[in-house]
Amino acid sequence: MPKITFIPQNKEIGVETGTNLLKAADEAGLYIEGDCAGKGTCGKCRVKIVEGDTGKPTKAEEKHLSAGDLKAGWVLSCQRKIKQDSVVEVPIQKDAHLRKTTLAGGVESLEAEPLVEKCFVKLSRPAVKDQTADLERLLNHLKRPDLSVELRELSGLPAMLRNNAFSVTATITGNKIISIEPGDTSNQLYGIAFDIGTTTIMGSLIDLKNAEVTAVAAVTNPQNIYGADVISRINHASQGKEELKQLQDKVLEAANNVIKDLLKQTKVARDRVYEIVAVGNTTMSHLFMGIDPTYLAPAPFIPAYSRALEVEASDLGLKVNPSGRVTFLPNLAGYVGSDTVGVILATGMDRREDNCAAIDIGTNGELVLAANGKLMACSTAAGPAFEGAQIKQGMRASAGAVETVRYVDNEIQLSTIDDAPACGICGSGLIDAAAALLEAGLVDASGRFVNPEENPEDVPAHFKDRLKRGKGGFEFILVPGEDSENGEDIVLSQGDLRELQLAKGAIYAGLMILLKEAGINENDLDEVLLAGAFGNYVRKESALAIGLLPQLPPEKIVAVGNAAGDGSKMSLASKTVRERALALPGKVQHLELSTRSDFQDIFVDALKYR
Amino acid sequence: MPKITFIPQNKEIGVETGTNLLKAADEAGLYIEGDCAGKGTCGKCRVKIVEGDTGKPTKAEEKHLSAGDLKAGWVLSCQRKIKQDSVVEVPIQKDAHLRKTTLAGGVESLEAEPLVEKCFVKLSRPAVKDQTADLERLLNHLKRPDLSVELRELSGLPAMLRNNAFSVTATITGNKIISIEPGDTSNQLYGIAFDIGTTTIMGSLIDLKNAEVTAVAAVTNPQNIYGADVISRINHASQGKEELKQLQDKVLEAANNVIKDLLKQTKVARDRVYEIVAVGNTTMSHLFMGIDPTYLAPAPFIPAYSRALEVEASDLGLKVNPSGRVTFLPNLAGYVGSDTVGVILATGMDRREDNCAAIDIGTNGELVLAANGKLMACSTAAGPAFEGAQIKQGMRASAGAVETVRYVDNEIQLSTIDDAPACGICGSGLIDAAAALLEAGLVDASGRFVNPEENPEDVPAHFKDRLKRGKGGFEFILVPGEDSENGEDIVLSQGDLRELQLAKGAIYAGLMILLKEAGINENDLDEVLLAGAFGNYVRKESALAIGLLPQLPPEKIVAVGNAAGDGSKMSLASKTVRERALALPGKVQHLELSTRSDFQDIFVDALKYR
Repeated sequence: MPKITFIPQNKEIGVETGTNLLKAADEAGLYIEGDCAGKGTCGKCRVKIVEGDTGKPTKAEEKHLSAGDLKAGWVLSCQRKIKQDSVVEVPIQKDAHLRKTTLAGGVESLEAEPLVEKCFVKLSRPAVKDQTADLERLLNHLKRPDLSVELRELSGLPAMLRNNAFSVTATITGNKIISIEPGDTSNQLYGIAFDIGTTTIMGSLIDLKNAEVTAVAAVTNPQNIYGADVISRINHASQGKEELKQLQDKVLEAANNVIKDLLKQTKVARDRVYEIVAVGNTTMSHLFMGIDPTYLAPAPFIPAYSRALEVEASDLGLKVNPSGRVTFLPNLAGYVGSDTVGVILATGMDRREDNCAAIDIGTNGELVLAANGKLMACSTAAGPAFEGAQIKQGMRASAGAVETVRYVDNEIQLSTIDDAPACGICGSGLIDAAAALLEAGLVDASGRFVNPEENPEDVPAHFKDRLKRGKGGFEFILVPGEDSENGEDIVLSQGDLRELQLAKGAIYAGLMILLKEAGINENDLDEVLLAGAFGNYVRKESALAIGLLPQLPPEKIVAVGNAAGDGSKMSLASKTVRERALALPGKVQHLELSTRSDFQDIFVDALKYR
Repeated sequence: MPKITFIPQNKEIGVETGTNLLKAADEAGLYIEGDCAGKGTCGKCRVKIVEGDTGKPTKAEEKHLSAGDLKAGWVLSCQRKIKQDSVVEVPIQKDAHLRKTTLAGGVESLEAEPLVEKCFVKLSRPAVKDQTADLERLLNHLKRPDLSVELRELSGLPAMLRNNAFSVTATITGNKIISIEPGDTSNQLYGIAFDIGTTTIMGSLIDLKNAEVTAVAAVTNPQNIYGADVISRINHASQGKEELKQLQDKVLEAANNVIKDLLKQTKVARDRVYEIVAVGNTTMSHLFMGIDPTYLAPAPFIPAYSRALEVEASDLGLKVNPSGRVTFLPNLAGYVGSDTVGVILATGMDRREDNCAAIDIGTNGELVLAANGKLMACSTAAGPAFEGAQIKQGMRASAGAVETVRYVDNEIQLSTIDDAPACGICGSGLIDAAAALLEAGLVDASGRFVNPEENPEDVPAHFKDRLKRGKGGFEFILVPGEDSENGEDIVLSQGDLRELQLAKGAIYAGLMILLKEAGINENDLDEVLLAGAFGNYVRKESALAIGLLPQLPPEKIVAVGNAAGDGSKMSLASKTVRERALALPGKVQHLELSTRSDFQDIFVDALKYR
């Protein structure tokens, strides 16, 4: 039986000869990125065979891997069958935020105040003088005659009591016993907090006794085969019940993979996970629960529901305790989901007394404003520019992406993720680049490149060669071909500047509308919080420079990390936080920007750089 | 296409050539008795072909039908394929109580106060100025923001609202919306009350708007293949999960057949049945819910639970509205089940201020005593004598059973059910016969036949020929062979008298213990209620004569019919009655007779005839 050693994780696993390497990694509890479920079409599941036979590359490998990579031992793990002992290097995921286990700075911490409680009891034995039924004997001992009990737990109760000297542990949530276990299992009490993203599904296993995060795991949202954005997925789901079910099955299957990973990492038994809390945008929430999202797409953008939905794990086929409770936190509007609820909880905005805005930037930017003790929220169609999409050489934040660009001593300085040869530009690099070019005077406030042909005096001599004419206008060469990964220039185009303008303008205009509704202006803001991975990586100075954020001192701009996911964890760990979450739909005023007569004016004004 | 006319019901149905006659009857909405699901082994599904081809009898028919029957056109309906137009006579079920639609005299009537309510609403349409989610729009209109909703109802809500001008009907029970239907369906609100007997499963479809019983149906409990009595079934279920599931599947399948019949009779749609209430003995309750009954069998006879269990119809696969609520009423002890709860409700014993006893006679006799404002109950192992079992020529109450026996003018007079040639003796006939022979002086108080050889003077001359020596002692010829169906004498044996003694002694002793505990004696009883089919058919005078009942004036003995089933109907129809039902486990004191030191004395004393 061949043995595979995965490095740098140092996990060993023995497998049958011919086992698929992607599967073997999965069995070893390792997460290898991939979008195509092992079909060889996405090219993402690259691993490097350090020892062992690499064999002949498959067609899929020839398509996705360069000759140099192949020579170095890189393969697609889905394409490989293992025939001998091997050492395989698994690249550490560059989406490092997926693996973050602690709550980001600036957000509230986890408090252990679980909704699920466990009680170990030792009952007196029945006798002719005490013919109390088994269930009532248990409830009397718990002094909770009001509790109901899951049928599936009741069926086995008589034998369990008699086989275990009438000593059992009851798991109670609300007014229901959801599990009865033999002996004393009161120290095994777990829950999982999910952040169901359009792109990535993250889960954290939490020991509910002490609110400790014991493991985290993530997978790509496999709904991506129906489109990268929520509108594509809504359109697919709208075609019929079967299509809706396809999308639900995908996300639940992914959630089950996360669960499997979490349980494997910690050796926690499936049945000891009694609660799941999830956040996500409104579309994800509908698809997760299998509810028709059709009318989210057209105006007036109406969700089927906004409240939190609570179901049993078995209703969804989630592989934790079948009676475990699954709660998807409430959404606030069609495009302001429970992920925003998570942001509000994690940042404590629902309890803050100062004026504070939170911005969660993604394809849709969600904005929350706490002002004068009131909460308002809106969404803006920022477009995917901040995620590197719609940008000429845009890419997600992974190795080789230009991530910082600065204008220092009259020069453009830049760095890439992992210092790898540049292969594109990610969201933070894009904002940095625009800010640097503005500072260098190569771009004017309207967002246009200065024309080196018409106004040659405006372009410093050493930049002249880097400003070239492209298809859609001028382009600035950030990285010349000789330094890039594939020999092509990495450029920032006029089109890229326009995309960025639209995106940042939408965010900024949204914030202005919220401030206007609250009757304050940007100087009244005590703090602006940047939520999400993007907020962690963007340079505040650049964001301020391009006018994405209001003109505040940088110390008032605070990145709070994945606040949505943190809010999910907090709601899982604490009854008090959960109550706050459930109350939010009634507390947050939603503003629909798309049809406001004042939005267009403010938006056009917000397009300007500074 | 051959046409079948069923008489005397006058139902016509056209069927494909070759259709099985039993199936055709089922399709026509007729109930034909049968235990073997069409295998030809039970011989019960007899019908008479009045017009049409009878063809050659099958082996099964030759086994179960006499040559005369075959000649007269009798066939087994399960054995017949229809090839031409036919007129078929379906015997009216002799178990006439199965078809009784009104509540028996002496019990409370049905009041319409349903737990399930329907609300038709016409909602305002959403707009950009009113982006309230669909569910919240509905709940706001209902002014019930506290309601939760079944997930399966929520999924289709968006499309349903938009396809029906935002007009829908919500069905609410407790604090949950269990159904949302397009348009106004508020006049369609049904429930089914079940009486899950060890032998027979009866169901009544009730229009919950007016508490009207719109149809009744019954089938034999198909668990009988695992034994006729509850102990056999407990023993089977105790063998493992699979065996337990077999028994559960059987009873649920039978319940579904009853449901199908009820819906067919009334043309009510399956989804319009929102609630099921069931009663039955404690074993039936466990098996219906799929809960291990093992520890009901050995002392100290402990049920898994005593409270009412409420589940969703879909949890059990019952074919009504999948979100419909199924409530099995609470049991009071291992051998005092929710059928007794039904008796208490129907007779109002929980609200009576006088002293009153109720006796529900079957294999187990359940006794309830209301005295001094308190309720007590016990069960007695009466044995199946009252159902005609363990009796030499005993049979169930169907055509040809000796059902009344009287001693008039020094003669024994008797009648059979339907005046058919005598073929056996049923429970009421047995009690009558014993009473008549006691009165005639042919049986002494100890239960022994006078010995015509030792004491010839004690036997009137005209009875001398009818008292003959059998295997186990003397026997009295009730019907001589020349008058009986199969040419054999129909007799009452010494053994029969002994069986009856044990049975009636157990009942009477149980009642004495209840009276003793209450500190009253039989003369303090204002009424004795006889529940169950048996109570309807037994002659009070005979029951008094043999000492089955306390010596009270006959007008104080009242037959109340199937009070258990009536209690089920009342609990379905009325919220107030349901609340009374749920409260009963805490109000009824259960006495365990089997281990009482005083029981044996009282029992031996109670064995005497008078």
